[in-house]
Amino acid sequence: MPRKKKTEAATGKLRVVMLGGLYEIGKNLAVIEYEDDMIVVDCGLGFPDDDMLGVDLVIPDVTYLKENEEKIKGIVLTHGHEDHIGALPYVLQQISPPVYGTPLTIGILQGKLEEHTYEIEPDLHVVYAGQKIRLGCFEVEFINVNHSIPDAVCLAIDTPLGMIVHSGDFKIDLTPVDSPMIDLPRLGELGNEGVLLLMCESTNAERPGYTPSERTVGASLDSIFFKNAGKRISIATFSSNVHRVQQIINTSEKYGRKVVINGRSMQNIVSVATQLGYMHAADDTLIDINDIKKYEPEQLTIVCTGSQGEPMSSLYRMAFSDHSRIELSSNDVVVISANAIPGNEKLVNNIINELFRRGVNVIYDAIVSDVHVSGHACQEELKTMHALTKPEYFMPIHGEYKHLATHRNLALFLGEKPDHIFLSEVGRVLEIDSEGARFNGTVPSGKVLVDGYGVGDVGSIVLRDRRHLSLDGIIIVVAAVSVESGLLISGPEIVSRGFVYVREAEEMMDELRDLSAGVIEECFADGDVDTAYIKGRMKDEISRYIAQKTKRKPMVLPILVQL
Amino acid sequence: MPRKKKTEAATGKLRVVMLGGLYEIGKNLAVIEYEDDMIVVDCGLGFPDDDMLGVDLVIPDVTYLKENEEKIKGIVLTHGHEDHIGALPYVLQQISPPVYGTPLTIGILQGKLEEHTYEIEPDLHVVYAGQKIRLGCFEVEFINVNHSIPDAVCLAIDTPLGMIVHSGDFKIDLTPVDSPMIDLPRLGELGNEGVLLLMCESTNAERPGYTPSERTVGASLDSIFFKNAGKRISIATFSSNVHRVQQIINTSEKYGRKVVINGRSMQNIVSVATQLGYMHAADDTLIDINDIKKYEPEQLTIVCTGSQGEPMSSLYRMAFSDHSRIELSSNDVVVISANAIPGNEKLVNNIINELFRRGVNVIYDAIVSDVHVSGHACQEELKTMHALTKPEYFMPIHGEYKHLATHRNLALFLGEKPDHIFLSEVGRVLEIDSEGARFNGTVPSGKVLVDGYGVGDVGSIVLRDRRHLSLDGIIIVVAAVSVESGLLISGPEIVSRGFVYVREAEEMMDELRDLSAGVIEECFADGDVDTAYIKGRMKDEISRYIAQKTKRKPMVLPILVQL
Repeated sequence: MPRKKKTEAATGKLRVVMLGGLYEIGKNLAVIEYEDDMIVVDCGLGFPDDDMLGVDLVIPDVTYLKENEEKIKGIVLTHGHEDHIGALPYVLQQISPPVYGTPLTIGILQGKLEEHTYEIEPDLHVVYAGQKIRLGCFEVEFINVNHSIPDAVCLAIDTPLGMIVHSGDFKIDLTPVDSPMIDLPRLGELGNEGVLLLMCESTNAERPGYTPSERTVGASLDSIFFKNAGKRISIATFSSNVHRVQQIINTSEKYGRKVVINGRSMQNIVSVATQLGYMHAADDTLIDINDIKKYEPEQLTIVCTGSQGEPMSSLYRMAFSDHSRIELSSNDVVVISANAIPGNEKLVNNIINELFRRGVNVIYDAIVSDVHVSGHACQEELKTMHALTKPEYFMPIHGEYKHLATHRNLALFLGEKPDHIFLSEVGRVLEIDSEGARFNGTVPSGKVLVDGYGVGDVGSIVLRDRRHLSLDGIIIVVAAVSVESGLLISGPEIVSRGFVYVREAEEMMDELRDLSAGVIEECFADGDVDTAYIKGRMKDEISRYIAQKTKRKPMVLPILVQL
Repeated sequence: MPRKKKTEAATGKLRVVMLGGLYEIGKNLAVIEYEDDMIVVDCGLGFPDDDMLGVDLVIPDVTYLKENEEKIKGIVLTHGHEDHIGALPYVLQQISPPVYGTPLTIGILQGKLEEHTYEIEPDLHVVYAGQKIRLGCFEVEFINVNHSIPDAVCLAIDTPLGMIVHSGDFKIDLTPVDSPMIDLPRLGELGNEGVLLLMCESTNAERPGYTPSERTVGASLDSIFFKNAGKRISIATFSSNVHRVQQIINTSEKYGRKVVINGRSMQNIVSVATQLGYMHAADDTLIDINDIKKYEPEQLTIVCTGSQGEPMSSLYRMAFSDHSRIELSSNDVVVISANAIPGNEKLVNNIINELFRRGVNVIYDAIVSDVHVSGHACQEELKTMHALTKPEYFMPIHGEYKHLATHRNLALFLGEKPDHIFLSEVGRVLEIDSEGARFNGTVPSGKVLVDGYGVGDVGSIVLRDRRHLSLDGIIIVVAAVSVESGLLISGPEIVSRGFVYVREAEEMMDELRDLSAGVIEECFADGDVDTAYIKGRMKDEISRYIAQKTKRKPMVLPILVQL
């Protein structure tokens, strides 16, 4: 039985649905609804799996939001990371509710929206931590948390059935940089008043203990600057980690260095953060990259993109000598102030190897600890969130299945009841009413793939073909035939790509030509003039021949031009 | 100046060339030559990089060995891992020198060779740790080391100019399982007598401290078995880790469990290792998988393949309910007793998530330490190798550039002279004579890609095409034309694969058809009848149209059938 705080007589049903962020990292989107009111928390993108060849990014299927557009009272954002706001540029082309976020979140979002066009101009609203807004029957309070981007909040959503706390992404930083500590007292108050449902992120649920404070990185940077006084120092980090960049600026100022901000996304964020007062530097600290020749290497710090090894990033171009203004040598120190996101390990590794080859002193997590700290709560911090909010029901969110399941185990360890913990999945509806809570049905949900300008036009068949093509290439057999007269008029011609180096396989190509001609002529001789049938036989016989001869399975594509 | 131990008057040049194992993990192969004598140390395979689409494995280019076949006195193997013996099945089809290795190494190699055919039957010789063999002017001593496979050795190669120590892969295990500790006294003796060149592996050069003993895993397994007495326990590990499997058998026997060995490579190794006496179990411990129904789950241990997340492996099939005899549930514990090799993280992760979804208690390195230990020396162990052998010259081997460079830094820290350390690269010749040591020239070297039955027939053009096809697919435009009469006779027909779901893009396909027809007719009208020119223009215009419309770059392949 839920605790009913204000609305003892609430007779409706509260529904909570995640359209992303479960069984996956990213694509976070939560829907909370009560009768005719609906709010959306975050609207993030995800990155493609390895088997989504050629896909740029993944966004949630928002069919359910489109079907209920008139109910949506607002989209509420917890912070400005891609996995929380990155799908908005696409989703706001389909629905147009008001969007609420803290100043930096809205500032970053505005930059992204400018790259797209909208029929209805997006309706953005700035709110501040500590503020409450009313959205239909809901009252949403924005509560300060610590995370790897400033201005991050968690949400206390007052509903007719009781309070929902949505953690957003958070950590507990007792010594944060340039920002207040997470508002634990307010979370404790909410807990004392009664929390109906805690929706809590699970990213670091596998990690015991506490995530170290952002300040520890500052101390580590200080030591690196002190030891490398004679060298130029370049530091790659996540562009949105404003506090990290601030610490780099502070340390540079302390050691008398100018700072160059390099890489487009880094420049964009620094510009927004500085305008909004989230970042500050002495007047002459930040210099243009064109002015680096005016300074000695040891007077310079370069803050750059590329901490994930992205080809085309600033650090990548510096490492592979493709940067027009920065050439690295043994007089350089490069700090990789980030962890490799799963899947990026090899890319980062390639850069590290290349930097070593240039004689650069490379400082990265394998050899020096504390050059990076996570922005997410470890187990003891998650326990603190539970212990303060004392929720009636709990839904672990934001994580792969293993993270959600481990978070559930933590909740059980804390004494929460097994049947009050709801490990949901994307599209599944958690329903809460005065009788209790239960899963009840599903809504449309899924992944929409973005490839170039195409949103949703790459589906499973296209991906299957790309995978097939990627493994053994394609063999195309073209012939011109006259079906009426049963004659092979021209060809067959064999064209292959990605299969084998043709000049060294002429014999095989000749045999494929003979084999194909044989099939066509045999079919015509037998009176089989259905080109679909003939192409099917060509495909089968060629595939069988190639498998036997090479143990490979290229895509085989017969084309018959009918005259 | 090298120390000359025996051959004060040696006037020739000693040459040391790596044909693999530098700037890469795997593909290990060293060549050591003096005048007309040559020996080869190891002959391993490597795994394809992410951009080698469809490639099964990579072997060293052994052109240099083929050119000098008459000089090769023998191939000496340090241990039975794929990256040290895996290229032999291919290389022995090209050259036929005698091969020397310890019993388990030769036993595993024999199994691999049986899958191929040879003009000249491979000439395999078993040697034992402690033994010396003469190969031309060289005397090779096999010295016991600890590693993650039994019967591993390092080599002391006595040459006319002095002693070379080749570390193979090693760790220092003070409490090894079923095998003696690495022969540190002998390495110390060699050092005291004078070592000319140390070639030492660098895999763990980034890691401080010592690699824990294999026994620590045994203790960890014991605790897991004790705590999970009521459940079936499945353990995935590297099949070649005989000592790990032995510890699983021992622990199972202690707790009264029968052991099922599951997965083909696991069964192969257990069979070889048992035959050769490297593995032992009570008569009734190992049972056939068909007999598991005769036992309660808590009476069973399953040792399986799949610790790297390989699709088709035993663990993968168990996790994804594709195993005919084993169905996992909340009554199962699965231990992943291995680390994910870089690049396999996501595959392993997928399995862990799937196991959690089945309610399995999953035990893996993120949540329990000591379920796996490395087989390679960490920094303090590497220092021990250097300190004992006291080499005149040092060449770091077996590692990416960052590992080799970090190993060089360790050697510098130990006081070795910078100009006596040779960080080489594949194909580069280190030359040593009575005057000293230096790099001098290169020999043919490189990577040979194996794809199906094809060895070396997939090169850079084929890979480039596979990459291109994988990203945005292919668009084929076919038309029948009569060049003489300047007529477009049939088509153009548009066929695409992996580009876009055609039924939803009919308009675009129509436009492409019109565009192509327009180009052909325009060319003919202008009197341009060179089909290469016409195809070039078709390709350009179609590519431009598609890029503008979709921001994608599929491969565009115009085919003109001439009548």
